[in-house]
Amino acid sequence: MEAHELGYFTEENSAEVVTGRNKNASDQRLKEIMEVLTRKLHEAVKEIEPTQEEWFQAIQFLTKTGHKCDDWRQEFILLSDVLGVSMLVDAVNSRRPSGASENTVLGPFHLGDAPEYEMGHNICLDEKGDDMLAWGKVTDVEGNPLEGVKIDVWQANDEGFYDVQQKGIQPEFNLRGVFRTGPDGKYWFKAVKPKHYSIPADGPVGDLLNRLGRHPFRPAHLHYIVSKDGYDELTTHIFDPDDPYIDSDSVFGVKKSLIADFKETSDPEKVAAAGFDGPTYWDVEFDFVLAPKKAKS
Amino acid sequence: MEAHELGYFTEENSAEVVTGRNKNASDQRLKEIMEVLTRKLHEAVKEIEPTQEEWFQAIQFLTKTGHKCDDWRQEFILLSDVLGVSMLVDAVNSRRPSGASENTVLGPFHLGDAPEYEMGHNICLDEKGDDMLAWGKVTDVEGNPLEGVKIDVWQANDEGFYDVQQKGIQPEFNLRGVFRTGPDGKYWFKAVKPKHYSIPADGPVGDLLNRLGRHPFRPAHLHYIVSKDGYDELTTHIFDPDDPYIDSDSVFGVKKSLIADFKETSDPEKVAAAGFDGPTYWDVEFDFVLAPKKAKS
Ligand SMILES: [Fe+2]
Ligand SMILES: [Fe+2]
Repeated sequence: MEAHELGYFTEENSAEVVTGRNKNASDQRLKEIMEVLTRKLHEAVKEIEPTQEEWFQAIQFLTKTGHKCDDWRQEFILLSDVLGVSMLVDAVNSRRPSGASENTVLGPFHLGDAPEYEMGHNICLDEKGDDMLAWGKVTDVEGNPLEGVKIDVWQANDEGFYDVQQKGIQPEFNLRGVFRTGPDGKYWFKAVKPKHYSIPADGPVGDLLNRLGRHPFRPAHLHYIVSKDGYDELTTHIFDPDDPYIDSDSVFGVKKSLIADFKETSDPEKVAAAGFDGPTYWDVEFDFVLAPKKAKS
Repeated sequence: MEAHELGYFTEENSAEVVTGRNKNASDQRLKEIMEVLTRKLHEAVKEIEPTQEEWFQAIQFLTKTGHKCDDWRQEFILLSDVLGVSMLVDAVNSRRPSGASENTVLGPFHLGDAPEYEMGHNICLDEKGDDMLAWGKVTDVEGNPLEGVKIDVWQANDEGFYDVQQKGIQPEFNLRGVFRTGPDGKYWFKAVKPKHYSIPADGPVGDLLNRLGRHPFRPAHLHYIVSKDGYDELTTHIFDPDDPYIDSDSVFGVKKSLIADFKETSDPEKVAAAGFDGPTYWDVEFDFVLAPKKAKS
């Protein structure tokens, strides 16, 4: 019936015939999504003209990627990350007025229950790495300081691993903490200078990167979720511009506006004021600007 | 370095930044394939604008599809089939001069070692279903009969299952056989009228079809691989036009040129000539036209 209207499947009408079958879909959004995905997939096949063997290699790659996924490893998210899809999905969901801080990928290592500390606390529990003081203020887009902002921060340790990747090796909640701003909108806490690290590269996604001549590293960064009722939740990183991978983040998380300045500081007065033993520490100032919450569309 | 030339990842330049990372790929064909796939995937994300939750549903769907795959089940091939990708890959690899018989999908149930029989043999070993005589001739595109053509035929039984799906239930090699044409290019063999059947629908692909308001059935068909040295191998089906699913094959295998005529025949002389007990049988005449082998490109 519909096939007679459209004609049978041919190379020319392929996407229309396939998506024409969805006319009785109960879920209109799914129907719309499948229309776009099918059309783009068929465009890709027509442009690539894969051999039967290349098609089967793609089937095998997807199968291996699925088989690599378990409760602790999500190889399809990794694939989405290295193809820039995760960043793009974040981008289309995080369009903000100019002046507001930009989002970047959440990553797989956030915990919802990190301990809350007083400002100034040192979240480094394994005593490895170079001392760092991170500080700044949180304002709205007009520059007014925001009180009661929750600042949830986490980072990898000096060896490039998150605590959850090394349970039993790192102390629990190493390099994680939640802070809340006062009326001046200011935050400050102690930690260690972050290092670059590799995304999990021992699976099909790592093999793909390797065949594409790409490395699996992410430049050094701190993760933040900065949130307050009535404002658009900010999920972001700040990056070290002197990292060797700053221009080639394997998951494309770097944005110009998220590059911080890590200043090595040896002035004894400043070292003492920061609360370190010295002789030096890294001083990182970074301000966050929250956009008003968007109406649900 | 390259990121500085291109700028960091943004919503606008996303695909260029991602594919720009592949410039050191050793495999040029892989680089080309990933360029197209990445570009089309990013176009799809920009058009769909998925929420984070929709993105995660896609990740979960792919993961479940991977977990459903094992030595006996290939859920990603099934996904490729129901999205028309398998047919499209076949189409771009099987462009033939006008007049030559058209390809369709191979399907997962072909065996390479079916027994070879004399013309006229009955390949139905389970004695279920309505008698059928299939016959015709094989020619080149000029109409000359072709000698020594290998005709490899297989079909589901009267209950809609291939022998390999019911090992221990159906006789081995039920409804499979290989025949070879003589100087007149003619073929003829006995079997049973095929029935429609469902593709495996108890996995994520079946769930997707269900949510899209689609059924999982394939209209009744016979499978053929028709081959001779010097000619383009023909992998095809012939279809029963009176099947209720003829216009809605779940894997889009139907082509107008592959629709046969299944004639119910009760003339006692014809029944006897075909070698059946009667009172009726189904008579299916179908000619195959082989195209000359294409030079390897
Ligand atoms: Fe990270
Ligand atoms: Fe079949």
